[in-house]
Amino acid sequence: MRKQIVAFAAAAVWASASMGQEALWSGGQVNSPVVNADGTVTFNVYAPKAVKVEVTGDFLSPRKVDTQTGQMEVPGWAELKETNGVWTFTSDPLAPELYSYSLRVDGMEMLDPSNVYINRDVASVKNIFIVSRGVGDKGYLYGVNDVPHGDVAKVWYDSPTLKMKRRMTVYTPAGYDKGKNYPVLYLLHGAGGDEDAWTTLGRTAQIMDNLIAQGLCKPMIVVMPNGNITTQAAPGEWGRGMYKPDFMASLRFKEKPAATMDESFPDIIRYVESHYKVARDKRHRAVCGLSMGGGHSFAISKAHPTTFDYIGLFSAGLHIAQGAQGSFYDALQASGKDKEQLDRLFAAKPQLYWIAIGRTDFLYQQNVDLRRYLDEKGYGYVYHESEGGHIWRNWRDYLTAFAQMIFK
Amino acid sequence: MRKQIVAFAAAAVWASASMGQEALWSGGQVNSPVVNADGTVTFNVYAPKAVKVEVTGDFLSPRKVDTQTGQMEVPGWAELKETNGVWTFTSDPLAPELYSYSLRVDGMEMLDPSNVYINRDVASVKNIFIVSRGVGDKGYLYGVNDVPHGDVAKVWYDSPTLKMKRRMTVYTPAGYDKGKNYPVLYLLHGAGGDEDAWTTLGRTAQIMDNLIAQGLCKPMIVVMPNGNITTQAAPGEWGRGMYKPDFMASLRFKEKPAATMDESFPDIIRYVESHYKVARDKRHRAVCGLSMGGGHSFAISKAHPTTFDYIGLFSAGLHIAQGAQGSFYDALQASGKDKEQLDRLFAAKPQLYWIAIGRTDFLYQQNVDLRRYLDEKGYGYVYHESEGGHIWRNWRDYLTAFAQMIFK
Repeated sequence: MRKQIVAFAAAAVWASASMGQEALWSGGQVNSPVVNADGTVTFNVYAPKAVKVEVTGDFLSPRKVDTQTGQMEVPGWAELKETNGVWTFTSDPLAPELYSYSLRVDGMEMLDPSNVYINRDVASVKNIFIVSRGVGDKGYLYGVNDVPHGDVAKVWYDSPTLKMKRRMTVYTPAGYDKGKNYPVLYLLHGAGGDEDAWTTLGRTAQIMDNLIAQGLCKPMIVVMPNGNITTQAAPGEWGRGMYKPDFMASLRFKEKPAATMDESFPDIIRYVESHYKVARDKRHRAVCGLSMGGGHSFAISKAHPTTFDYIGLFSAGLHIAQGAQGSFYDALQASGKDKEQLDRLFAAKPQLYWIAIGRTDFLYQQNVDLRRYLDEKGYGYVYHESEGGHIWRNWRDYLTAFAQMIFK
Repeated sequence: MRKQIVAFAAAAVWASASMGQEALWSGGQVNSPVVNADGTVTFNVYAPKAVKVEVTGDFLSPRKVDTQTGQMEVPGWAELKETNGVWTFTSDPLAPELYSYSLRVDGMEMLDPSNVYINRDVASVKNIFIVSRGVGDKGYLYGVNDVPHGDVAKVWYDSPTLKMKRRMTVYTPAGYDKGKNYPVLYLLHGAGGDEDAWTTLGRTAQIMDNLIAQGLCKPMIVVMPNGNITTQAAPGEWGRGMYKPDFMASLRFKEKPAATMDESFPDIIRYVESHYKVARDKRHRAVCGLSMGGGHSFAISKAHPTTFDYIGLFSAGLHIAQGAQGSFYDALQASGKDKEQLDRLFAAKPQLYWIAIGRTDFLYQQNVDLRRYLDEKGYGYVYHESEGGHIWRNWRDYLTAFAQMIFK
């Protein structure tokens, strides 16, 4: 068998070269990145003709630069050093985490040709790697370990409210085929994202597999719909072809959506509750989301006040129907319908209303405003403030925390 | 809503830059590639500091080069021309097809920074684009069109024979939730590939969606297991971490597999037939595969001679238990068990035994040998010979043809 596969490999290289097809692999002989035992990471790039090779990513400290408008922090760059055509850089020891990075070779930003692990974030693609020191740390939680794995499906459901078929991602936990009455977490993405974002950038399947295997959260179904109400699916996955993604994608395709995300949300619940083995009551439903998806969770939970017992706002972009004049607090105070909806939601006593945000998030003040309003009303919520800003590192943390607090 | 998303976008750029995170998108202002109305394709690359920018891919004619061992065809390269920092090249009009390509900037091969559509083939990543002139051509067949879509799931099943949990991809056609007794096509990948290959490089979900929507094939379930018997899943999707893929991956992880692919195949059928709404008889089962997967289809069908009514060998890498001495024909003639298995398979009169290969495939002679043997035995099969070699372009064609011949 070994002999046969070696023959396949050799022949495939030959066929590839001789037939004018793409080479079947690239990146050559180097391995990159290499996560070393001490938590440092070494990048290796074969670039014999290059004059300068650099790496950037969230594993490097940002550096401050002076701009016309003042001091600003920008992503750091590290220079690689060359020996025999191979450029190398080794990082400081890194904390357990999922990191992303890219290279710059003589001024052109590019992916690492030796690393096939890639995440797309809106219209950008970056290589990723994971640093872990052992069971239970963040690197472990985001990695695929030798634990039972749930299934991940891309399914198409009907949304009569939005007048289209739509695609979503559904995680069913290991053992689902033998179980019943699962609780459901509805997990929503941010602006520019789509139904793929939570499983790629968010590592949701890995987080759930690992938390469940450690007994830290209940086996649950996680439903990740598309929150862009004028698109059917992620870029390239519906009839509009392979368009270039951007934050405005959801607005480019239809002048006027048929309904809002909160109006159309019952279509999603109806599909899930008629196709999966789930408990169909408030105690077994949770909704949370990041950024725009946090705003959606805010809107959906108050529009359907007796539907969810667990609500999570992650770095929420808050928005009320009337349009904001002045602060979010002022807008909320001036609103009619939204205040009434919040009254009904909290009258139904949800088990958990969780607000999480990073200290430097650009949406911080909106969330201060919301808390001020909830405090004045005496509505119970739990607040979690973290370091950092509007970044996936925080959202993976928030999901990890939220998943352990629900359905208990 | 528009105003809010614009604010999100602006704020996200700011947050990204100021927080030391990766920029949320790259590729800048150009669009690339642009498929023009006349079937030409324009590549645009913003590279103001570059001295030379080239593009290669299977849309270009290969060129002949002299090597020490004689003339060989290698992938062609086209040079882009620069205006104001933007490098451009427009191809000849291209036939409808899925194409892949990459760039070379001052000698470094890289992806197109404006194109997020990427396929991995073993250890290499390439950008893709599709050219279509209308309904029914190959570009249409490989594209996502406004037709009902099937679901695609990554599921974990138990393989007691291989002593591990394993991952596979399952396509269920649109309307599956309302139907019953679906036929099942087992679709196998080649050496170096995995359970992701047929849905990415092979565009299986799109081909099936479009053929079914046009009434050209029966709605069926397509099961795409992992054919590397010492790995559980695609690279990065099981407990071995984010290793660098290669053709030898299936051999690197275990010295001795517990069983062969054909011995373990009943585990897959058992899972499918106990978890999906399928017809459980020979008339409703087909198996086919490419290269190593064609060899697996050869082995599986004869090891289980009354299981499948439809068998497809796509550019098959043929292998028999005794190990080949001389030609495949000689090895087959000298074998005991394999000949007996073939006798039993053809005694059970499969509806279709389909052998497809390209004229310049490096496995061509093996398939001549197999046909010679079948001819001498008087065993019925259908032979399809195409242009080209051991390439995905052929395998997508073969799947398209095979899917229309089965379950009828």
